[in-house]
Amino acid sequence: MDEQKLRILLAGAGGVGVYFSSILAKNGAEVKVIARHDHETVSRDGYFIDDRGEAKHFTPAGVLRSAAEYDGVADFIVIAPKALPEIDLPRLVRDAVRDRRTALVLIQNGIDIEKGLAAAFPDNPLLSCVANIAVSRPAPGRLLNQGMIKLVVGGPAEPTARLVDYFKAGGIDCRGVDKIEPVRWHKLVWNIAFNPVSVLAGGVTTGELCDRGETENLCRSLMRETAAIAARRGVSIPDDEQAAAIESARNIPQFRTSMVQDFLAGRPLEVEAILGNTVRIARAAGVAVPVMECCYALLKSIDAQQRRRAEKK
Amino acid sequence: MDEQKLRILLAGAGGVGVYFSSILAKNGAEVKVIARHDHETVSRDGYFIDDRGEAKHFTPAGVLRSAAEYDGVADFIVIAPKALPEIDLPRLVRDAVRDRRTALVLIQNGIDIEKGLAAAFPDNPLLSCVANIAVSRPAPGRLLNQGMIKLVVGGPAEPTARLVDYFKAGGIDCRGVDKIEPVRWHKLVWNIAFNPVSVLAGGVTTGELCDRGETENLCRSLMRETAAIAARRGVSIPDDEQAAAIESARNIPQFRTSMVQDFLAGRPLEVEAILGNTVRIARAAGVAVPVMECCYALLKSIDAQQRRRAEKK
Repeated sequence: MDEQKLRILLAGAGGVGVYFSSILAKNGAEVKVIARHDHETVSRDGYFIDDRGEAKHFTPAGVLRSAAEYDGVADFIVIAPKALPEIDLPRLVRDAVRDRRTALVLIQNGIDIEKGLAAAFPDNPLLSCVANIAVSRPAPGRLLNQGMIKLVVGGPAEPTARLVDYFKAGGIDCRGVDKIEPVRWHKLVWNIAFNPVSVLAGGVTTGELCDRGETENLCRSLMRETAAIAARRGVSIPDDEQAAAIESARNIPQFRTSMVQDFLAGRPLEVEAILGNTVRIARAAGVAVPVMECCYALLKSIDAQQRRRAEKK
Repeated sequence: MDEQKLRILLAGAGGVGVYFSSILAKNGAEVKVIARHDHETVSRDGYFIDDRGEAKHFTPAGVLRSAAEYDGVADFIVIAPKALPEIDLPRLVRDAVRDRRTALVLIQNGIDIEKGLAAAFPDNPLLSCVANIAVSRPAPGRLLNQGMIKLVVGGPAEPTARLVDYFKAGGIDCRGVDKIEPVRWHKLVWNIAFNPVSVLAGGVTTGELCDRGETENLCRSLMRETAAIAARRGVSIPDDEQAAAIESARNIPQFRTSMVQDFLAGRPLEVEAILGNTVRIARAAGVAVPVMECCYALLKSIDAQQRRRAEKK
């Protein structure tokens, strides 16, 4: 669709980043990926993707070990690692940001997660994206997508429209917005309830969570508190939207949230991006969020335990 | 100290019950115990007790399999199993309650735990006790006591005084009170914070809990909410008592609460006696306890997961 081939670099090549990059590649973009953990496998075989039962294959145009190995100027650098405090996003991409035309495309969960990149690269367009996707990596070089996919891209008009067109042409339900923050709050209502509580309740499914009992009420409390904070930022999340989120979770009873999957696998949890940042926004705004504070304290401790155990191995 | 030998039956022979019964036996009482899990070991060898480094031995006057096997009339039936909904206290002792002179001595954690026994045996004196004791059972027939011991006995004057004298003569820091409820609230402030949070935070020590950070604040919130409920019942728990509880927990940094020990061993948790009953009292009194409700929902779910895993084994 472009006269010139779109040049993409993917940094933080987890399931989400690889899936979206594969769509761009399929649509004619030249996609190179920085892959460290599974560098060998991916260099040799590319990625095998089970996309809702359909077998797909994605061979990147290059498999790099770091941003420094990238040659030339990228149109877009897709940045999609897990949202963890120890992952320094500017450092991850710095060596490949060589021109102010290069747009940074951040695809991560959470709220208030753009600051680091915005401060490090003030002259580059920053496209902050909210993805609805349930993709996992069952093995190195392998992806499993089991659900519907939606992507909202927020950023300056020109690069946003260009990226959205590419995704749409690749069959993705994608739209562009001026400001991503409201979209993040709406997504956060889901994330903040089901992700932490599914872990704190002992690693349960969404069905066990939304059992019309105590844990479901707890999810509702977290949603109400989140909506109260969002309201202070001018974003309205009506009660029926919260109720619909509970319904939707109930309707996929066997679903394990990404945070439960990380918890059960002993991996670090996205505590700060989802809960910590939200609690800090609430504190700064003077909104009382006792339930959220409680879940934050517990999840932070669980994560610390988890990391300690992982170190011992 | 009595002309006639005091006759004691112990039902729910966990560490706490066996320890206190051994004190009565040492002091001349005839103590029989209902022991099911470790019946054989205890029948053969009695109990070996490591009491703060001092080796003691306790041979019960009889080791029974049920209350029905008890002969005659007991002066006191000590009832000290873990406080779990599936343990029916009246059923546990019914066959041995043959006379209204037999006093029932309940030694358990929690609040509002006397109702079942009071309703089942309205004519028998009920002595409800709050114990400060850190005793564990490292193996069948073996007890380990590592801390200071205190016992408060609440009930009608005569049998209470008699039992208190026996414990005092056995060297126990023991006192009698008319009404145990205030004592239970003061104890609950400690229990409700450190027991559930130490589990929910991932199975941590009191030192990790009282780290002057998020989990310590969470413990303080739970204490404040508990004090607010207690206030409605006419029991005042001042702020400095709450602060002292935090200090005392910080001063035994390696301590694992009884609930964490149960959690790490995969045993059922005393959720209802400690948290559930308190939440229900708060709801009935119209006291808002968002943090307690949150912890209750989570702990109930953790306990359910724990029980499910135990069944699978």
